[in-house]
Amino acid sequence: MYTLGVDIGSTTSKAVILEDGENIVASSIVVATVGTAGVEEAVKNVLNSSKLELKDIKSVVATGYGRMNYDLADYKVSELTCHALGVHKEFPNVRTVIDIGGQDAKVISLAANGKMTNFVMNDKCAAGTGRFLDVMANILNLQIDELEIEALKSDNPANISSTCTVFAESEVISQLATGRNIPDLVAGICKSVAIRVAALAKRVGIVEEVCMSGGVAKNSGVRNAMSKELGVDIVFSKNAQLMGALGAAIYGFKKS
Amino acid sequence: MYTLGVDIGSTTSKAVILEDGENIVASSIVVATVGTAGVEEAVKNVLNSSKLELKDIKSVVATGYGRMNYDLADYKVSELTCHALGVHKEFPNVRTVIDIGGQDAKVISLAANGKMTNFVMNDKCAAGTGRFLDVMANILNLQIDELEIEALKSDNPANISSTCTVFAESEVISQLATGRNIPDLVAGICKSVAIRVAALAKRVGIVEEVCMSGGVAKNSGVRNAMSKELGVDIVFSKNAQLMGALGAAIYGFKKS
Ligand code: SF4
Repeated sequence: MYTLGVDIGSTTSKAVILEDGENIVASSIVVATVGTAGVEEAVKNVLNSSKLELKDIKSVVATGYGRMNYDLADYKVSELTCHALGVHKEFPNVRTVIDIGGQDAKVISLAANGKMTNFVMNDKCAAGTGRFLDVMANILNLQIDELEIEALKSDNPANISSTCTVFAESEVISQLATGRNIPDLVAGICKSVAIRVAALAKRVGIVEEVCMSGGVAKNSGVRNAMSKELGVDIVFSKNAQLMGALGAAIYGFKKS
Repeated sequence: MYTLGVDIGSTTSKAVILEDGENIVASSIVVATVGTAGVEEAVKNVLNSSKLELKDIKSVVATGYGRMNYDLADYKVSELTCHALGVHKEFPNVRTVIDIGGQDAKVISLAANGKMTNFVMNDKCAAGTGRFLDVMANILNLQIDELEIEALKSDNPANISSTCTVFAESEVISQLATGRNIPDLVAGICKSVAIRVAALAKRVGIVEEVCMSGGVAKNSGVRNAMSKELGVDIVFSKNAQLMGALGAAIYGFKKS
């Protein structure tokens, strides 16, 4: 039995086809465009690569920011529920999920059975979200995926005293003007994200194992900084960005 | 007897020469530059226009963000104290001062005798400060002093749902792209500042009369929006930006 999970985020759309609630047979991540074009492309991609048709799919479950506008879904389920399901599948021992998305950050506490027991969320402030990294990459003239490479070159992260994206941007510009090197600046930027999200995480309480998910988790600079800030190891999967979509597909399986 | 007050802010330096703690004989506002060049120019300006020399000045008092680096000062006094003194001189009936500066916002409660009884401050978040307006003026290709003119043309302020400067910027850009007119956008931007600072003001409690000071208070769009948000009249002086420097000069008089 196949189920399809789609996660319609603010900056990317993700789709996962799951077989019998167990195996990912196809996945796709597409940069969001206007309306539902992004998610439609992601769904087309997973159907193509799995050689399935929509009629072969038992249940379609949508999650994420844009789920309400996606009419194909049999169920529309909150990101928190889907993230918890996805992460528990991938890492059964994880008790704390730190998910940093394009425009928000959430920290979810899980019980041993994978049920969500608590969460905190920031979707009001760009600091500590992917948007902070976008702004900084832009002023440093770097692509988002170059940040990780630069951060790894530094052993002396620049100190960025402002949490606020706008004030931190000015600090980075002026440190750049006084000749601070890019790797140290990028490492400082990653550290700033980690400090902001760690403060959020401490509000729910950190119980190990801790995993990171969401697009920003792909950046090892942020993962390493987060690990230092929290004083714990961080579990990470190459499917980190797919957790919501995976969880949605699992939800569909459970309902079928 | 002459006293000199200087207010070294993040974006402008202000200087006031006061005669006998009563009459402003000269004032100057200079856009801040590197180090103390801005305040030195402001002081030169007030000495020139008053035809006084430094030796004629009984006491020099510095306030504001940059006061610690200003060696000429006989006293260095907090912005809050100086603002309270300046405002109470100009408006003896004012009990609540809302000061929006280039990078911060503060709300000060005064007793009937002008003494500060309480305050709240935001210097962490660019929203609800002059910096928010700078960012918005920049994307609309307007000068800061054009914002007021545009806001006055609107009777239907655009709704900006995000408080965060970064997210609000995206909203304004996308509303601009869909053809929303500039006056409505600017009025919405002024309203956003007012909402943010009104929330801060409500934390100390609003007691009338309420006055606005600081550079942002010069913008009637923000003053009108603030008046609507708080449901009170707002007192305003053309010297609004000089309150800190005036209070510093008064402090010098009292100490002499
Ligand atoms: S602190 Fe900065 S990034 Fe955060 S809400 Fe305020 S303006 Fe936005």
